[in-house]
Amino acid sequence: METRKCPGFQAAGVASGLKKNGEKDLGLIYCETPAAVAGVFTRNLICAAPVQLDRQRVSRGICRAVIANSGNANCCTGQRGMQDAVRMARAAAAGLGVDEKEVLVASTGVIGEPLPVGKIESASADLIKRLCPEGITGFAEAIMTTDTVPKVVSRRGQIENHAFTITGTAKGAGMIRPDMATMLCFVMTDIQASADVLQEMLKTSVEQSFNRITVDGDTSTNDTVLLMASGLSGATVAPGARQEAFQAALDDVLITLAKWLIKDGEGATKLIEIAVTGATSRQDARKIADTVAHSSLVKTALFGEDANWGRILAAVGRAGVPVEPERIDIRFGPVFMVQNGMGCGKAAEARATEILQQPEFDITIDLKQGDAGTSVFTCDFSIDYVKINADYRT
Amino acid sequence: METRKCPGFQAAGVASGLKKNGEKDLGLIYCETPAAVAGVFTRNLICAAPVQLDRQRVSRGICRAVIANSGNANCCTGQRGMQDAVRMARAAAAGLGVDEKEVLVASTGVIGEPLPVGKIESASADLIKRLCPEGITGFAEAIMTTDTVPKVVSRRGQIENHAFTITGTAKGAGMIRPDMATMLCFVMTDIQASADVLQEMLKTSVEQSFNRITVDGDTSTNDTVLLMASGLSGATVAPGARQEAFQAALDDVLITLAKWLIKDGEGATKLIEIAVTGATSRQDARKIADTVAHSSLVKTALFGEDANWGRILAAVGRAGVPVEPERIDIRFGPVFMVQNGMGCGKAAEARATEILQQPEFDITIDLKQGDAGTSVFTCDFSIDYVKINADYRT
Repeated sequence: METRKCPGFQAAGVASGLKKNGEKDLGLIYCETPAAVAGVFTRNLICAAPVQLDRQRVSRGICRAVIANSGNANCCTGQRGMQDAVRMARAAAAGLGVDEKEVLVASTGVIGEPLPVGKIESASADLIKRLCPEGITGFAEAIMTTDTVPKVVSRRGQIENHAFTITGTAKGAGMIRPDMATMLCFVMTDIQASADVLQEMLKTSVEQSFNRITVDGDTSTNDTVLLMASGLSGATVAPGARQEAFQAALDDVLITLAKWLIKDGEGATKLIEIAVTGATSRQDARKIADTVAHSSLVKTALFGEDANWGRILAAVGRAGVPVEPERIDIRFGPVFMVQNGMGCGKAAEARATEILQQPEFDITIDLKQGDAGTSVFTCDFSIDYVKINADYRT
Repeated sequence: METRKCPGFQAAGVASGLKKNGEKDLGLIYCETPAAVAGVFTRNLICAAPVQLDRQRVSRGICRAVIANSGNANCCTGQRGMQDAVRMARAAAAGLGVDEKEVLVASTGVIGEPLPVGKIESASADLIKRLCPEGITGFAEAIMTTDTVPKVVSRRGQIENHAFTITGTAKGAGMIRPDMATMLCFVMTDIQASADVLQEMLKTSVEQSFNRITVDGDTSTNDTVLLMASGLSGATVAPGARQEAFQAALDDVLITLAKWLIKDGEGATKLIEIAVTGATSRQDARKIADTVAHSSLVKTALFGEDANWGRILAAVGRAGVPVEPERIDIRFGPVFMVQNGMGCGKAAEARATEILQQPEFDITIDLKQGDAGTSVFTCDFSIDYVKINADYRT
């Protein structure tokens, strides 16, 4: 737990009454010094007020705090929504004594209902009082929606004898696909870097992590990933120099969080890496991996622990990429299920079924056409997914 | 039932032992005279042996019979699969005394297992003996997989005092999306037309029907639609002339069958038409309609009878089409749920919830950007869909 703290940051989470069940729903991260900040946001054209506000404010490059709520997405709420997002930031800024333009905002929950911003304003004094260096777990609880556990990942690294820390938290369990999702992620670090350098490194890491996961193929209106750097460690990342150690640690934090989102995906019982190899280009490999990872028929078969490779091949065939069916191999873990487009028989299926019973495994599709490849992460599609999403608002 | 007969055709269905439960699994349509024939097939690059064989044989323009089985797709079965498809056709041709190159083949069921073609050969004499003009219902039963009812639609029309008949049957309940699906459809008519004319008219009708439906967004390896014309009615459709009456009746048969496939979709409890209006182009409208119709989050909300319009807007926003969020209206039936990008409140939701409780309704998304529009048909996404597809092979 010790490593979860990140020098220069405090956090907290409280229950403000936005969630009907009385659980924590309002979180705050406070940067003791002005932090350099970078952000990546949803590409959905329907985007929530806090995303619109943050896009403006992140471009200033400095952040003093992030206030985030669950229970309401403040999306499709018109002009009032934008005013409410501003009021949320203002409540935090006033209590902390910082410039409100340096306070960022995030919301997650139901779309289209006005944000009860008065509850947030009423709770903000208590929220600020509870700030502490160990508060990130409370914050992580406050941003949960259908997540079943709070998710915090911390890593340490070193640049020229200066140790640094990266601590990140994320939420999101449905409406998740590449191009981000109903997910929020907040990452604190004590390295020294400019906002521009942070932005490049964050984009690189997001491409390796949150843009490689899918739960249900839906993207959200509120996706936000923020990276804040306090500079307190003495470790410095300059443009183009000594970035590797920090980039690797950042990738590790974000990939770990991304995989955790999938493991905790709505109704998910398994984490599956879909790898495509032997493609003509990385783009082709990605198209095929995405199509397989999104297929409802593949995902329900994985839930049923049924080594139904025919559905995988059928998904490959409709991905819009030229393939030579009679060359394709498919492996479940190390077990060949398909060789040269044909099934490997009942014995292979029996071995594959054992792999399907594991909580984590990989499926490799080898096109044998070229040298390019990639992989994405998905989960199975269970009865509970339908139950969770049929009853979400009731 | 009288109208189900189509002059010049006989049909039958028997149990050959391919289905473990002893139900009908082998069907035959016999054309008493050489029929002109047209075909539309899956665009999936992984396609089954019978599809490959039919593509060659339909190009000859003449058909004497179609033999179709359920319980095995004869797909990803390599050279043996093609030999088995040829043997199936040969068994029918020998018993009927027709040229085997004028016999078409269709298979549906599990992918990747060798076809037990011996069972089909053994059953073919009995199958031929049972041929009769009223046999289409037995044939329709023999091609069912997860379908719950056999589907036969018949329509009559008139061209210059000559009455004509169109009788079609279709199967398919999962792995269904635009660009066809795990679906087979066989249409008989007694009009007189060349194979070229039939092919054009069939393509037009398929575009209006089977290419506008989705159950789960997966496409199949075996999709086949065949149209056979005996010419016995005396009604003639010549190139470019007098096509309207026949085209309208053919559209009606195929659209009725397509909507029936959705109503009987795996686990489906509702048939929903997703209409997009006010788009800049028909292609844009279609992209948005498809994205909404495929969204697992939208479909589970529909199953839960939850008027969760936020998920619809979120799907619109990720469709890859430029939209102006603050102009969009959404109606459930006649009830406005969203006007100018914002929700219409609790009273509207209560009225919309009543509509959601109907077995059939439409959702209209008005972009208010232009004059183009289109619609697609989808179903809800239920717990039973997952159950059916997790356990399909067990």
